[in-house]
Amino acid sequence: MKKVLIDCDPGIDDALALALAAGSATSDFAESANSLDVVGITTVGGNVDLPLTTANALALREFLALGDVPVTPGSAGALLRHTVRAAAVHGSTGLGDVVLPAPRRGPSEGHAVDFIVETLRAAPGEITLVAVGPLTNLALAVRREPRVVEWARGLVIMGGSYTRGNHNPAAEFNMLADPEAAAIVFEAGWTVTMLGLDVTLTATVTSAVLERMRPLGRLGKELLVPASQFYGVVTAEGGPALHDACAVAYVLDPSLFTCVPAVVNVETAGQFTRGMTVTDFKIGDRRANALVATAMDVQRFWDLMLGTYEKLAARLG
Amino acid sequence: MKKVLIDCDPGIDDALALALAAGSATSDFAESANSLDVVGITTVGGNVDLPLTTANALALREFLALGDVPVTPGSAGALLRHTVRAAAVHGSTGLGDVVLPAPRRGPSEGHAVDFIVETLRAAPGEITLVAVGPLTNLALAVRREPRVVEWARGLVIMGGSYTRGNHNPAAEFNMLADPEAAAIVFEAGWTVTMLGLDVTLTATVTSAVLERMRPLGRLGKELLVPASQFYGVVTAEGGPALHDACAVAYVLDPSLFTCVPAVVNVETAGQFTRGMTVTDFKIGDRRANALVATAMDVQRFWDLMLGTYEKLAARLG
Amino acid sequence: MKKVLIDCDPGIDDALALALAAGSATSDFAESANSLDVVGITTVGGNVDLPLTTANALALREFLALGDVPVTPGSAGALLRHTVRAAAVHGSTGLGDVVLPAPRRGPSEGHAVDFIVETLRAAPGEITLVAVGPLTNLALAVRREPRVVEWARGLVIMGGSYTRGNHNPAAEFNMLADPEAAAIVFEAGWTVTMLGLDVTLTATVTSAVLERMRPLGRLGKELLVPASQFYGVVTAEGGPALHDACAVAYVLDPSLFTCVPAVVNVETAGQFTRGMTVTDFKIGDRRANALVATAMDVQRFWDLMLGTYEKLAARLG
Amino acid sequence: MKKVLIDCDPGIDDALALALAAGSATSDFAESANSLDVVGITTVGGNVDLPLTTANALALREFLALGDVPVTPGSAGALLRHTVRAAAVHGSTGLGDVVLPAPRRGPSEGHAVDFIVETLRAAPGEITLVAVGPLTNLALAVRREPRVVEWARGLVIMGGSYTRGNHNPAAEFNMLADPEAAAIVFEAGWTVTMLGLDVTLTATVTSAVLERMRPLGRLGKELLVPASQFYGVVTAEGGPALHDACAVAYVLDPSLFTCVPAVVNVETAGQFTRGMTVTDFKIGDRRANALVATAMDVQRFWDLMLGTYEKLAARLG
Repeated sequence: MKKVLIDCDPGIDDALALALAAGSATSDFAESANSLDVVGITTVGGNVDLPLTTANALALREFLALGDVPVTPGSAGALLRHTVRAAAVHGSTGLGDVVLPAPRRGPSEGHAVDFIVETLRAAPGEITLVAVGPLTNLALAVRREPRVVEWARGLVIMGGSYTRGNHNPAAEFNMLADPEAAAIVFEAGWTVTMLGLDVTLTATVTSAVLERMRPLGRLGKELLVPASQFYGVVTAEGGPALHDACAVAYVLDPSLFTCVPAVVNVETAGQFTRGMTVTDFKIGDRRANALVATAMDVQRFWDLMLGTYEKLAARLG
Repeated sequence: MKKVLIDCDPGIDDALALALAAGSATSDFAESANSLDVVGITTVGGNVDLPLTTANALALREFLALGDVPVTPGSAGALLRHTVRAAAVHGSTGLGDVVLPAPRRGPSEGHAVDFIVETLRAAPGEITLVAVGPLTNLALAVRREPRVVEWARGLVIMGGSYTRGNHNPAAEFNMLADPEAAAIVFEAGWTVTMLGLDVTLTATVTSAVLERMRPLGRLGKELLVPASQFYGVVTAEGGPALHDACAVAYVLDPSLFTCVPAVVNVETAGQFTRGMTVTDFKIGDRRANALVATAMDVQRFWDLMLGTYEKLAARLG
Repeated sequence: MKKVLIDCDPGIDDALALALAAGSATSDFAESANSLDVVGITTVGGNVDLPLTTANALALREFLALGDVPVTPGSAGALLRHTVRAAAVHGSTGLGDVVLPAPRRGPSEGHAVDFIVETLRAAPGEITLVAVGPLTNLALAVRREPRVVEWARGLVIMGGSYTRGNHNPAAEFNMLADPEAAAIVFEAGWTVTMLGLDVTLTATVTSAVLERMRPLGRLGKELLVPASQFYGVVTAEGGPALHDACAVAYVLDPSLFTCVPAVVNVETAGQFTRGMTVTDFKIGDRRANALVATAMDVQRFWDLMLGTYEKLAARLG
Repeated sequence: MKKVLIDCDPGIDDALALALAAGSATSDFAESANSLDVVGITTVGGNVDLPLTTANALALREFLALGDVPVTPGSAGALLRHTVRAAAVHGSTGLGDVVLPAPRRGPSEGHAVDFIVETLRAAPGEITLVAVGPLTNLALAVRREPRVVEWARGLVIMGGSYTRGNHNPAAEFNMLADPEAAAIVFEAGWTVTMLGLDVTLTATVTSAVLERMRPLGRLGKELLVPASQFYGVVTAEGGPALHDACAVAYVLDPSLFTCVPAVVNVETAGQFTRGMTVTDFKIGDRRANALVATAMDVQRFWDLMLGTYEKLAARLG
């Protein structure tokens, strides 16, 4: 059992990442190294506004049968100035055409930053942080309590790129949405595992993948298929990339990815390059502050994804 | 009684500001509008490192007979990247040649950011924040809980300048020490009362002022006089400016200052101008986010200072 | 006789600066140290567009009886990106309500940059550059032929400020209009004499000054008085500042000004501070790249101005 | 016959680009569309200092039998502040281990910027600019005489990248060496053909290529082979990329490259990204200011290169 705390901004690909986590958390896997213990979900404004990302996280917790996992809302906007949203990508609700049953339970008391700090404090060395939205909550946690850097077992983010961005030519959305937070997190002293567009864009929902999602009961019909189809055009050759799911997949099976040590600096001052993760693989005598994914095994990724979704589907009915 | 929460980085002028607050908090003034209720002191790394600013605050709490006022440590460094210190100005301990008795009690549990948030939450509309160091704690508080902006009765800062800096030609030290935090605080939605170098440099410890400090018992002998003399060269015409004391003086008597509405933007991107408080008095149809002091009544300021110090001295023996 | 080459963007105060130069160039002064030999006028886009600044320079050459002084047009816009204009200050023609007779002669062949380079090359050590507009032409000259730095007898600019700007809180107009050019010029290796807003704003056209302009024949009636009145509101206590005239006055009589060595860096990267002349008077072991005016003798300045204008008026009829 | 003016900073790959141009300029091709008329070579400080790049250009003119092609030196350093060099890549002389006979003739009178302006003015619409060094000369030419943009038949540069840099993770060397100049050139109003690292790194000197250079007489023995071997490690699979030669090859045969319209902005303000060519292929309703090469036909490139080198070798003996 691997303990994870997931900071997210659902978001379509966040939803499919949570589905992967939920599937990996079922009792089927309890004894397996390939199982997760989701100790908490925290939310942040990102793809859409915080009230929506929190509402989506709550609905997903129940739809995905995540049980008592606490959902704690956090930061509504970026540390400094700029707030960007991606509603054009994720739809006005953040989940495209997906309509989940209204959740019966609300969020936990308190703030995501405090939840992160206290949860890590209580189990030093045990919990891996998985961050798939803007890094605002994590940056505040690091500044509020620098020891989270030691307490965390690791930090895996979906974000950045060492080649080109998506929201603009230089920056990936999660990093652009809070460049200063990203800079704080990358400079905090730990080694960030960065799964950027360089790899996430290689694993897309093709027609073949979609066909394997269709038979998956409510999970397939109400979430996986409509989410994927809203998120991009699915063809035999390609389709939308489920970026955030890669971060959960990494925790489940790091061997899916090739990761290379690097020095990553987040640009905060550029006119055209704010939020760019400037990635230097020539680390020289500097400390590598990141392990940057440069390749992923796409076939095995989908095997993991769809295999897990199948087991979750069986459970959900 | 005016309730204040003082965020500081003692620091010589912080010490003399706390002495003004302590003097104003004695029972002599209890029924007066010109009295303070210091609900808490929080510390931040600034003039010197956080362990020293906290140790100094603790020693001052006891030396100044501030009683049970909680002292809560906060942020050790700037939000982003740059940490600057001013040990050349304040000495290696932060208090120059001043040696205070070691404090018997330690700091409160918890973190300054939480203390600020919870203290304001508990008494909305009642407490004025007085910030005389880098604005890191306040920025984190604002981002952690945006409602502190509504809960605070006001925010008075010593910092910035609308003309020239002190640490470099463009920036005042407190702003330079955390430009991003300053930007967050100025953009948070409230109206910041900014007492910058433009006014604080007009009120200096002259020989005449020093002569009035000398007879003030232990307060004068052990704190006021050696602090002032370490802080600058005292002559008949001029001497060091007790910047931070101006912020406490403002709360006690706003009529000491002329304040003009302005739009203040904190530069975070410049090569030579990071931390500059770019102050536009032509606000047009924009919201004024600051009241900027443009003049102070130096004579009445010293009357307030020395009068209060006298009463405190009588109490301290 | 002091040889000067004037780079300008007329502009109302440029016009009155040229009038000062023209008056100082009359034969009345030929044997005096206080006389000028204007070896050329070059124009640059600035207060208004280049065609207008050139047209105004041509009209002024004839109206002011500057004889055969060549007028050579130069750069239309800033080196990089931003072009700002000040038509609101100088009127749509650049000369407010002033209407001069159409010039009979056109500009010289060639480009201002080449004119500057070749004129200085031909008389090394003899010619003082006087720049009262954006520094585009001078920057290009320096980069095109770095030896102009040695060939120039000196460089006197009207521009910048060591306190506050005018076009915005941080930047003076001439510097803001081409920050990169200003940075090039200040870093070129010579010592720039900088007459900034700090002094130019202290010498304004008051009612008393205006009354001395009125009797000055065509010069007063057609240029000085309408120009001054368009440029600002004239009262007993104050009025518009004839910024550019200060630069010519400096060449005529440097003793009008107190100048202090400084290191001036021009900000090119800031979000709110582009074009700011960051002026450090603590030069330490660095080379002072500027002599910055910190005070001027206003009474003697007006005596020089009005005395020269009177003689020019007598000549113009 | 295609007329080209080559602005360069030899530099090893500049040398091999000039060899390609020289080979294409021989009378063998005189009637062919695939022949060049080199109307001039201008030099700029870049890979090494200007005196060396000029000396190398002069030596190459004679070694390559370029006849009377004028060689005119230009700018020694960047427009603004930063000068970077690449002597580690090109050796202290700029040509690695290559030692050419000392040239008998010196450079032309005048300055590269003037040469560019006047040469284009004399033959509007006829001459293609090929720039394979920092863009300082071109930027100054554009600012000195904006009509060069109309007069040039086209502008082909080796420089930039739409993915990653070489001198650092974000910037290619030529762009980093003068970011402001690059920004000026890209914003000047023409359409820049940009051959960046994305393509130039795909065509490397492999063992097979090197074997075809060896038999090429003096050209091979004294220039091509030692230059290539100094420039990188040659193996069966890869070796050094002759970046600059791609720009000349493009003029000879544009069909070697796939070029896509784009909006290219050069970052001048970033902390980690100065000199980056931020390339947006989503041009929307903006004007495409560049045609950016995204692929090259490597096989045909080497056929052109080696075929031309063979003919030149035959001529040189």
